[in-house]
Amino acid sequence: MTAALLEQYRERLRTELDRVVDFWLKYSHDKEHGGYFNCLGKDGKVYDELKYVWLQGRQVWMYSRLYRTMERFHRPEILEAAKSGAAFLQKFARVQASGGPGKCAFCLTRDGRTVKVQRTIFSECFYVMAMDELSRITQDKEMQADAESMMDRLIFWVQTDSSDLGRPQLPGDPPINSMAVPMMLLCLVDQLTEGRTDVAEKYKDLSGWCVERILQHIQRDGKAILENVTLNGKELPGCQGRLQNPGHALEAGWFLLQYALKKGDVHLQKTAVDKFMEIPFHTGWDKQHGGLFYFLDVDGHCPTQLEWNMKLWWPHCEALIAYLMAYGHSREPVLLDRFKQIYNYTFTHFSDEEHGEWFGYLSRQGEVVLDFKGGPFKGFFHVPRCLYMCEKLLDSLLERQDS
Amino acid sequence: MTAALLEQYRERLRTELDRVVDFWLKYSHDKEHGGYFNCLGKDGKVYDELKYVWLQGRQVWMYSRLYRTMERFHRPEILEAAKSGAAFLQKFARVQASGGPGKCAFCLTRDGRTVKVQRTIFSECFYVMAMDELSRITQDKEMQADAESMMDRLIFWVQTDSSDLGRPQLPGDPPINSMAVPMMLLCLVDQLTEGRTDVAEKYKDLSGWCVERILQHIQRDGKAILENVTLNGKELPGCQGRLQNPGHALEAGWFLLQYALKKGDVHLQKTAVDKFMEIPFHTGWDKQHGGLFYFLDVDGHCPTQLEWNMKLWWPHCEALIAYLMAYGHSREPVLLDRFKQIYNYTFTHFSDEEHGEWFGYLSRQGEVVLDFKGGPFKGFFHVPRCLYMCEKLLDSLLERQDS
Repeated sequence: MTAALLEQYRERLRTELDRVVDFWLKYSHDKEHGGYFNCLGKDGKVYDELKYVWLQGRQVWMYSRLYRTMERFHRPEILEAAKSGAAFLQKFARVQASGGPGKCAFCLTRDGRTVKVQRTIFSECFYVMAMDELSRITQDKEMQADAESMMDRLIFWVQTDSSDLGRPQLPGDPPINSMAVPMMLLCLVDQLTEGRTDVAEKYKDLSGWCVERILQHIQRDGKAILENVTLNGKELPGCQGRLQNPGHALEAGWFLLQYALKKGDVHLQKTAVDKFMEIPFHTGWDKQHGGLFYFLDVDGHCPTQLEWNMKLWWPHCEALIAYLMAYGHSREPVLLDRFKQIYNYTFTHFSDEEHGEWFGYLSRQGEVVLDFKGGPFKGFFHVPRCLYMCEKLLDSLLERQDS
Repeated sequence: MTAALLEQYRERLRTELDRVVDFWLKYSHDKEHGGYFNCLGKDGKVYDELKYVWLQGRQVWMYSRLYRTMERFHRPEILEAAKSGAAFLQKFARVQASGGPGKCAFCLTRDGRTVKVQRTIFSECFYVMAMDELSRITQDKEMQADAESMMDRLIFWVQTDSSDLGRPQLPGDPPINSMAVPMMLLCLVDQLTEGRTDVAEKYKDLSGWCVERILQHIQRDGKAILENVTLNGKELPGCQGRLQNPGHALEAGWFLLQYALKKGDVHLQKTAVDKFMEIPFHTGWDKQHGGLFYFLDVDGHCPTQLEWNMKLWWPHCEALIAYLMAYGHSREPVLLDRFKQIYNYTFTHFSDEEHGEWFGYLSRQGEVVLDFKGGPFKGFFHVPRCLYMCEKLLDSLLERQDS
C-alpha cells in the first residue's frame, strides 16, 4: 500500500518537474543578451528585465544537474540553456568598481551592468555551484578552476578576513554565526567533492567546521533552532537572537542528514532528524490554517518582519526533501506522515494548474498574495530542486522496495 | 451640523493624542542610558533594546513640538523627555568609524554603540528636526547651529557630492529622483525657517528645487504619482519605475499644500490636492476591504514587495492630515468625505482600546498581523503628529466657523 502511494507521489512530482522545466525554458531565456530573465508574471511574461546573480547561478546549476543526472533532461537545449547563463555570469557577475577581487554583484541590468552589490557571500556561492556543476558536463578545466578559486576566496572571507566584502566593522555589531553561512558552505563542499577524493580531502576540515557551526544553532536545552547565535554558540539578545526560520532549519536538516549518511555518522543522522526536522515542524506548522510560517520568535513575541506569518513556497520545498530523505533512511512512518502533510498543503496551494510553475507567496490563510512565478528571490531553483530530489529519493525508495 | 461633527472629531483626536503621549512617556524612556526604547509590545513592554536613530530624532521632535505649541503639553516632564533623547543623540548618533563627517548611524545598542549605518540621508534628517525644534524651546544657540550645520551637510550630499554616504556609484544604477528626498528636505526647510526670515531667504532656492523635484513624480499625462523617476523627471524602467506608494504621495500632498498656502501659490495648491491627494485615493483605496494599500504597480502588475497589500498605519495618518488640511482650505465637501472615510477605517482598525496607542500593520482584510506598538520603523511620530496636526487644523476650522 505504501509502495502504491509512493508511486503515485513520484508520478505527480515527475509531471510537475517537466512542467516547471518547460516553463523556464519557454519564458526565461534572453536570446539577445544571454542569461535569464528572472521576473516572470503568472503567465510567464517578463515584467522586469533585471537579472539577479543568485538566481542566474542557481538556474545554471539546476539545468546542468538535470542534464547530467536525469536521462530525460539530457537534451541539447538544456545544456545550451546552462551554457548561456554561465557565459553571462562569467562575463558580467564580477564587480569591477568595488569590493575585493572576485566580489560579485547581486543584481545586473539586462545587458550586464551592475545595479546592486550585497556585502555578503551569496552571489559568489551560487557562482561556484553553477560553474562546478556545468564544468562536470563540459569537462572545462578552466571553468572548474574558476569555481575552485572562487570557493577559496569565499573561505578566506568567512574564516580569515571579511573586509573585502565592504561591511564596516561596527562596535555594536560584532560578527555572528548566521545559519545561512555554514549551511551554504556545507552545500558547496558537497557540490565540489562529489566523486573527487582529493578535493574531499582538501575540504575535510571545512565540512567539520560547517557542521559544528550549524549545530551551534540548537539552543534552549535542545528545544529550539535559532537562526542567529554568537560565534561561540550562545544566544544573542533581542529579536535577532530569538528569530526562528523553520524553512531554513529544515533545509539545514537535510544538508546535515545527507552529510551524516555519507559519513556513516549515526549520531549526527539522529540529530539532523530530531532537532532540525522535528523542532521546526512543531514550532513552524500553523495549526489553524496549515502551512509553515516564515518567521517566528522563540518567546512568542511578534516578529518584526512584516511577512512573518506568510506561507512561502521554499520552506515547503525544503520540508518535502527533508522528510522524504529522513523517511527513506529510517522508514519511520511518522516521517512519511510529515511528508504527506506538507505535500498536501503544497500541491493544493502553491502549484498553478493554469499556467504551470508555482506561486511563491501566500497569506497566512493560504491565498495567493503575490502572483508572479519569478521575482528577485524566486527563480528556477527551490521548486525544481525539490521535485528533482524527491523524484530521486522515491526512485531509490521504490527500487529498494522492489528488491 | 458640520460644526458638530468637526467638534466630535476634535474631541476624539484630543483624547487619543493624550493617550498616545501617555503611552510613550510611560513605557519608552530609558532612565539608565537616556534616549528611548523603540521596540514596545502591544502592552508597552520592551521586547528589544535597540535604539533606532530615525525614531529617536522623531520622538525628540514630537515632544518638543507638543511642548512648544500646545498648552496642555507644556509640562516639565515632556521637556525633560525631549532633552534626554537629544542628549543621547548628540552623544552617540554620529558614526566615528565610517562615512564622512556628520554621518549618523541608523541603529544603536541601548548604550549607544553603532549597530548599523544606512547609506542614505534620513538619520541625519531626523537629527536636524530634533535639534532645531528643541533649540527653539531652550534657546540653545549651539544646538541650533548643530542642526543648521547638519542641514548644510545634507544639502551638500544631495546636491553636490554623495560619496561620503558610502554608496558606490554603479554603472547600472544611475542616481534617481526618489520621492523621499525632496519631500524630506522640503519638510526640513519648513522646520528651520519658521519665524526666521533670514533662514527663509537662505533656503529659498532649495525649497523651489524640492517642489520641482516633487512635481516630477506626476507621470502618465498627469494620471499617476510614481515613487521613483529619473533626475530629469522621466519614467524609469521596470518595477522601480512603476512603483506607487499612496501614503507617501499623500504625505507629499500636504507638504506641498502647506508650502503653497504659505506662498499664496494658488496653482500649486490646486496641484497638491488634485494630483497628490485625489490620485492616491483613487488608486490606493482598497474597494473590497477598505484601507489604503501600501504599494501598487501603475500597470497593475503585482508589486514585488511582500507587504504590498497590507494596511499600514502611517499612510492613513498622512491621509487624515492631507484631507483635513485640504478641506480646511477649500471647504470642498468631497474632501471632508475623504477625511471621514479614512477616519472611520483608521479608528475602527488601528487604535487599540485596550492598551492605548495604535497597531501598525494589518492584513489586507484588516486584521492585526503585527501587534507591537513600537518597532524598527514605528515610533512616537506618525500617530501623534497626525493627531496633533488634525487637532490644530480643527481648532482653526472651528474658530473660523464660530466667527
